[in-house]
Amino acid sequence: MAGPCAVESKAQLFASADSVQLGGATVLRGGAYKPRTSPYSFQGLEEEGLQYMKEAKEKTGLSIVCEVTSIQAVNTASNYVDILQIGARNMQNFELLKAAGKTNLPVLLKRGLCATIEEWLNAAEYIMSEGNQNVILCERGIRTYETATRNTLDISAIPVIKSKSHLPIIVDPSHASGKKEYIASLSKAAIAAGADGLMIEVHPNPKEALSDGPQSLNPQEFKSLMDELKVIAAACNKRIGTL
Amino acid sequence: MAGPCAVESKAQLFASADSVQLGGATVLRGGAYKPRTSPYSFQGLEEEGLQYMKEAKEKTGLSIVCEVTSIQAVNTASNYVDILQIGARNMQNFELLKAAGKTNLPVLLKRGLCATIEEWLNAAEYIMSEGNQNVILCERGIRTYETATRNTLDISAIPVIKSKSHLPIIVDPSHASGKKEYIASLSKAAIAAGADGLMIEVHPNPKEALSDGPQSLNPQEFKSLMDELKVIAAACNKRIGTL
Amino acid sequence: MAGPCAVESKAQLFASADSVQLGGATVLRGGAYKPRTSPYSFQGLEEEGLQYMKEAKEKTGLSIVCEVTSIQAVNTASNYVDILQIGARNMQNFELLKAAGKTNLPVLLKRGLCATIEEWLNAAEYIMSEGNQNVILCERGIRTYETATRNTLDISAIPVIKSKSHLPIIVDPSHASGKKEYIASLSKAAIAAGADGLMIEVHPNPKEALSDGPQSLNPQEFKSLMDELKVIAAACNKRIGTL
Amino acid sequence: MAGPCAVESKAQLFASADSVQLGGATVLRGGAYKPRTSPYSFQGLEEEGLQYMKEAKEKTGLSIVCEVTSIQAVNTASNYVDILQIGARNMQNFELLKAAGKTNLPVLLKRGLCATIEEWLNAAEYIMSEGNQNVILCERGIRTYETATRNTLDISAIPVIKSKSHLPIIVDPSHASGKKEYIASLSKAAIAAGADGLMIEVHPNPKEALSDGPQSLNPQEFKSLMDELKVIAAACNKRIGTL
Repeated sequence: MAGPCAVESKAQLFASADSVQLGGATVLRGGAYKPRTSPYSFQGLEEEGLQYMKEAKEKTGLSIVCEVTSIQAVNTASNYVDILQIGARNMQNFELLKAAGKTNLPVLLKRGLCATIEEWLNAAEYIMSEGNQNVILCERGIRTYETATRNTLDISAIPVIKSKSHLPIIVDPSHASGKKEYIASLSKAAIAAGADGLMIEVHPNPKEALSDGPQSLNPQEFKSLMDELKVIAAACNKRIGTL
Repeated sequence: MAGPCAVESKAQLFASADSVQLGGATVLRGGAYKPRTSPYSFQGLEEEGLQYMKEAKEKTGLSIVCEVTSIQAVNTASNYVDILQIGARNMQNFELLKAAGKTNLPVLLKRGLCATIEEWLNAAEYIMSEGNQNVILCERGIRTYETATRNTLDISAIPVIKSKSHLPIIVDPSHASGKKEYIASLSKAAIAAGADGLMIEVHPNPKEALSDGPQSLNPQEFKSLMDELKVIAAACNKRIGTL
Repeated sequence: MAGPCAVESKAQLFASADSVQLGGATVLRGGAYKPRTSPYSFQGLEEEGLQYMKEAKEKTGLSIVCEVTSIQAVNTASNYVDILQIGARNMQNFELLKAAGKTNLPVLLKRGLCATIEEWLNAAEYIMSEGNQNVILCERGIRTYETATRNTLDISAIPVIKSKSHLPIIVDPSHASGKKEYIASLSKAAIAAGADGLMIEVHPNPKEALSDGPQSLNPQEFKSLMDELKVIAAACNKRIGTL
Repeated sequence: MAGPCAVESKAQLFASADSVQLGGATVLRGGAYKPRTSPYSFQGLEEEGLQYMKEAKEKTGLSIVCEVTSIQAVNTASNYVDILQIGARNMQNFELLKAAGKTNLPVLLKRGLCATIEEWLNAAEYIMSEGNQNVILCERGIRTYETATRNTLDISAIPVIKSKSHLPIIVDPSHASGKKEYIASLSKAAIAAGADGLMIEVHPNPKEALSDGPQSLNPQEFKSLMDELKVIAAACNKRIGTL
């Protein structure tokens, strides 16, 4: 899975989608509802952004995943997306989890910023207890004292989840590191550790991104990384670019 | 502020309210909507609990505070309570913050489990940017590696908030420590450090509590603590038991 | 206990000692061996610093405490000081703990930067198992994700230690907060929580200090704080300024 | 690098050495000086252990690495080992770092339990400033709130170190995870992320180990892991089993 942090415009999204497709990914990510620390930061294009996502899907054949931040957003996004995403800040927003559990869409559940693995699996249980068993876990780094990276990627979460659950787990190296120069190393580590996928931020022009520019790859960097990952994946008896 | 973690029954709440009043507190707390880690734990009496809270208020004259976990709960609780509480898990549930900001009730905003003080003040900004300036911050312990206590009370948050903001700050020593034997020490520390209030869990029979029993004081312990706190407060030129 | 982070010169130490005495403290601190993160930072005056400490003791009647960072320093410092200090970085330097345990001097044992309370008590056991029961614990803040303060003062350590051990515990609000404006609040909190003492950095001219200037009080600030602390201590049935 | 946590007897060490050699590793680890949290735990065979290590080296041709915990141990161990190890608890024991810097042996410097990467590189600087440039860094997990693993392996440390330093970095998945079932996954991740080596605990009979049994592989498990790692290493253009 790859794409921009936020859907900023139709042109920006379409350029991103082309890069994602070219790199060999199968799912396009893009935020239409952006939960930001400050109320004065860019908050997303909302339904207009979902509409662009749908058009990008029709154009490229990629599946689309989008974060939802309210019950109303679940209802709206269900008409557009293939996968609903619950973000780290909302991992224990139990009303939202239950609303996602009432849809029949796959739900990508990001780990909370300081959630234990046990709390994360319990959050997944809130979705599944409503009848929706199709949950994908996403490790995106936890908060620690170390400041060299934005968060600390908990690579051990992969074998721990594999030993405690049947749910698939993917890794988001972009939010985990916060710096594009570390993404290749962490992506390879995730695949070798046994992750079932990756979610990587790609932007046609990272320097002009409205959010998360420093952790976004440009199209060339993404293509190059995907080529490297295919070799590692093959050594692990896996294939990149299949759902 | 004091009272049980959860409203379990009318009898339990009324007994709690009597203890709270006898100890000299001015606000009764009690949970009607309980955000629990597991979907299979007791989730609260919801509107029935709010009704009991209102009756306890009429009986004792105490003000009442209750946690809300969804926009719908904000709307319902606004008809019953004097103060809306946003819990630690929802500190960055921005839709909920905005809904609370649209009421004209005071909002007690608990610090997220691993929120920085800056993120916490930004969360308060989400409430205030909707026009409601009446926010009370509540430090309730942060998540660290130390396991001797449930969380680590960040006592420094008191002077830090006092230096960065005009908002009042209270402390919840019950959730911070998770053990009743440490509550007296932490309550005194909070008052001496400059906190504007305390929120303490009191239950008529902690051993039978449906949640948080080990960290709840019984009525005698609460009365005894309040008597001790009055002496410390006086030494700090403050008074306990005034709003 | 109070005094400068490092002994820088005889004049600086004597001025500090006068302030410490005037404020009503009973023990003078001052570092002669400075464990610094970088090998290129100021490392202390070593035995020359100990000599100045002894002269300051003779001049003022204050007891003196000094950090030791090697077995050789234990041997040298034992000829000068009243209390040996083991710093946070050396809390699990077991050879050093055993050497301190072989002296008959009181040992001030600072908590490691991310030591659990259990590990800290085990470190004290290394000293006591050599026959020296005279250990004083010092809480000085733990490392967490929060960056508003240098470390996070774990105020709960006071009641936890009181429930698990008979050893006295003091608090170092200077290293815990890293900022002089928070020291008064934390000092009051520590006394109210039940601490048996405080260790506060005082420097005659903090702006010119070779280390830890931003967290050092000047003489006037120290005197003013001590006056405030006497009132809090009295409310807790304690006295400031007695050993 | 592989071998038992502690040298327990000549027979145990020789059996371990055979397994290490059979798996294709090139360096034998084994603790002769054991820094233990409690003074009443097994503390190591000291020089007798070093003697067994030397005999194992002569028997197998493996190089040997051993932890040193005091200046005296540095002096003694220098007569026996090929690589000196400084453990996590002593990462900021600056006197020890300087003593290791005065030898001409390679020094394996483990990251402190809550050391930042910057502090770790500064600790390496203490060794190098004495004239010994031959430092190998070892990431062994940091302390966080997560309890599913003994520590949290900071896999990002690999690309961060690679961007800030020319020093080689290896990973210890045994101490990082504390559970043998996670070691294979973390070892693969480390190699894929760019680590220059691994240090893995191997014991001929983990259930009878005097320390760290639950995180030790038995000889069959080690052989099997090494075979898998060769495939991953080849995909990363590296070779396992070369110094």
